[in-house]
Amino acid sequence: MWSVVVSLKKRYGKEKGRAMKAEIIATGTELLLGQITNTNARFLSEKLAEKGIDVYWHTVVGDNTKRLEEALRLALSRADVVITSGGLGPTMDDLTKETVARVLELPLEPHSGWEEHMTAIFTRPGWVMTNNNRKQALLPQGAKLIFNDNGTAPGVWLEHQGKIIVLLPGPPRELEPMFTEKILPLLPATDSLLLSRILKITGVGESAMEDMVADLLVAQSNPTIAPLAKFSEVHLRITAKAKTRHTCLALLDEAEEKLVARLGVHVFARDQETMVDVVAQALQRQQLTLAVAESCTGGLLSHTLTNISGSSNYFLEGIVTYSNAAKINILGVPAGLIEEDGVVSEQVAKSMAERIKSLAQSDLGMGITGIAGPTGGTAEKPVGLVYIALATPDSVICQRFNFRGKRENIKERAVMSALNMLRLYLIQHIG
Amino acid sequence: MWSVVVSLKKRYGKEKGRAMKAEIIATGTELLLGQITNTNARFLSEKLAEKGIDVYWHTVVGDNTKRLEEALRLALSRADVVITSGGLGPTMDDLTKETVARVLELPLEPHSGWEEHMTAIFTRPGWVMTNNNRKQALLPQGAKLIFNDNGTAPGVWLEHQGKIIVLLPGPPRELEPMFTEKILPLLPATDSLLLSRILKITGVGESAMEDMVADLLVAQSNPTIAPLAKFSEVHLRITAKAKTRHTCLALLDEAEEKLVARLGVHVFARDQETMVDVVAQALQRQQLTLAVAESCTGGLLSHTLTNISGSSNYFLEGIVTYSNAAKINILGVPAGLIEEDGVVSEQVAKSMAERIKSLAQSDLGMGITGIAGPTGGTAEKPVGLVYIALATPDSVICQRFNFRGKRENIKERAVMSALNMLRLYLIQHIG
Repeated sequence: MWSVVVSLKKRYGKEKGRAMKAEIIATGTELLLGQITNTNARFLSEKLAEKGIDVYWHTVVGDNTKRLEEALRLALSRADVVITSGGLGPTMDDLTKETVARVLELPLEPHSGWEEHMTAIFTRPGWVMTNNNRKQALLPQGAKLIFNDNGTAPGVWLEHQGKIIVLLPGPPRELEPMFTEKILPLLPATDSLLLSRILKITGVGESAMEDMVADLLVAQSNPTIAPLAKFSEVHLRITAKAKTRHTCLALLDEAEEKLVARLGVHVFARDQETMVDVVAQALQRQQLTLAVAESCTGGLLSHTLTNISGSSNYFLEGIVTYSNAAKINILGVPAGLIEEDGVVSEQVAKSMAERIKSLAQSDLGMGITGIAGPTGGTAEKPVGLVYIALATPDSVICQRFNFRGKRENIKERAVMSALNMLRLYLIQHIG
Repeated sequence: MWSVVVSLKKRYGKEKGRAMKAEIIATGTELLLGQITNTNARFLSEKLAEKGIDVYWHTVVGDNTKRLEEALRLALSRADVVITSGGLGPTMDDLTKETVARVLELPLEPHSGWEEHMTAIFTRPGWVMTNNNRKQALLPQGAKLIFNDNGTAPGVWLEHQGKIIVLLPGPPRELEPMFTEKILPLLPATDSLLLSRILKITGVGESAMEDMVADLLVAQSNPTIAPLAKFSEVHLRITAKAKTRHTCLALLDEAEEKLVARLGVHVFARDQETMVDVVAQALQRQQLTLAVAESCTGGLLSHTLTNISGSSNYFLEGIVTYSNAAKINILGVPAGLIEEDGVVSEQVAKSMAERIKSLAQSDLGMGITGIAGPTGGTAEKPVGLVYIALATPDSVICQRFNFRGKRENIKERAVMSALNMLRLYLIQHIG
């Protein structure tokens, strides 16, 4: 194995500084029928980009040996690394290994280690090893077998006439760990690493944000900064290219610092971190407890908060008071308040926040009342009108929002805004 | 327009019965960097399959005119219908129209209707029409402009030397309605329509289900029946091929009838319908009201129920009693019960269901208590242990579950099981 890697490093590595081109071929008729999405191509592309390997083509073909052969020949003519996904299973439809062997004019040979491994599996009572399973132990001559920790189809690593050919199983839960743990380390280092970081921004629209950082977006060529409008938030993707991980990270840090200086508290998280992660950490750190009373969000705020492991340390209770009766009888919102101001009003939101705080004996209480739609709106109080209140030990504040979108979107935007109100309070509170 | 369609129908339609082959080319460097997934290819493939047009290839290239040209030439050499997505915007990166015109050796000509439409848009104060925007009004000679109701980039329909070439904008919210509403009706009918139906099954694992219907899965070649294990449910996809929609539907109905005869109440929905849709319809129809008390599911049951528009007709209230204090003080679960049986127990689940039913004065009450993990489990009461109780006007029943998976998975499985308990009760109740 090592000799392969060393020879490839010589060919593609830093000495020559040559860029490597990759092509990803996915096989599977279910992809062409639109029954599943080619998420493997996205995953592999992202990992290859990080490694500095340029992906120039994705191709998808069905379980058809003629068209797979055509795709393989084309890919081998224009790429240095060809990666396939799918077609390594035991059934008749699984043609990838046979087709690769034919295109490369290599015989298929049984791999003794894998055959033993399979035989051991099939000694279990009731399991019968078929000729189809034996097929899975065959490898093109000269290939390395890549063990599959999550399935019976092994992967294949093959170096042939200056090309690297990698065959991966189709199911993402098998392909992803195999590629990350076993294939990526074998691929030669390149001259240019590509690392990305995402800054997540809320409380300001995409165009307003662009106005705040427009000069930075244009001026930068390395790292590049690209905005992406997401649901309820805007992402800025910073991508740095450099020879080493260290230089990449320094470039990312520098750009992040400039952006945060402009955008301030609008930046709420980085990369995988979510709004509720940030809020949960702040509540934990400040040892504050929370209870929430929801109407139009219907439990989504409670659900989001309790998705975090350990949330029982700070989340005491939630009430979904969908009916007026529940708001009055269980939560204790004064009936007169609802009559006077209407159930969707600042006064009712504030009362809900204060009542749940008092009932649960928590440090903080939140109240949400609004109209999620699609019915129930009026000219005065349209669909999307939502009041969100936060009761703290010292005061109760309320914000009015006009959200757009479908019922589920309005629920999600309201929850995101409620969490952001909490986040901004917790930032000031510590300060 | 009509003449184009008629001539294509003659060429590809029922008279000749020739199968049409399609290729989908997606452009966009962000696809090759793994920043986004090629969901357009899945969407288009599914729609084309339903229309009986065989998709043989998906290709993805970056925003690079040389490689797009190579992909177009190859696609035109092997497919009857070539559909591209992306590259129709106003920026320098947007190259699709120019490249298609060059490959087909057609000049680009301004489309007066679209230019007027754009000019009208840009009379709004503060909007300035640039040369880049004018570029969007250019079309290859002989092409039809397809209006974009959701963006500024129009689509293109082009018939050239016996091929159909369709250029679509990249954003799914623009591409999907344009293709469904404006392109699909233009594509000629074929000899073989492909229609699918999904039956959704719960309360029985994938292998147990396969045992119940194994002979049907093997015996059928038209329609085919394929199982697919989903989260908390199993799907059976029935796919029928025939010359007419009518025959397809008859084949689907026949297969569905056989499967339902075997699987009985385990079949809970078809196609787009979800578990909560079915439960909501039954509650509405039977005019029953519901209130729920959740512990480990943290509000997800309330959230799921209130995602349905009109849920205020039957959903009165939810309580998320995350702490023991909340269960005792607010819900009124006897403290002695929690001390004696533990908070995760059949008795506590039953009490939660009865108490919330009584508090909310609803017809039905549900109580859920369990351990969502990853911490908090013991040998006796492991992570994933969940009790779900349903209080009805006549009785209170409880089921014990041992779910596997991560915290969010356990929450979702518990909610699915709670809804299924409700569904089964409502079926019997009406019977």
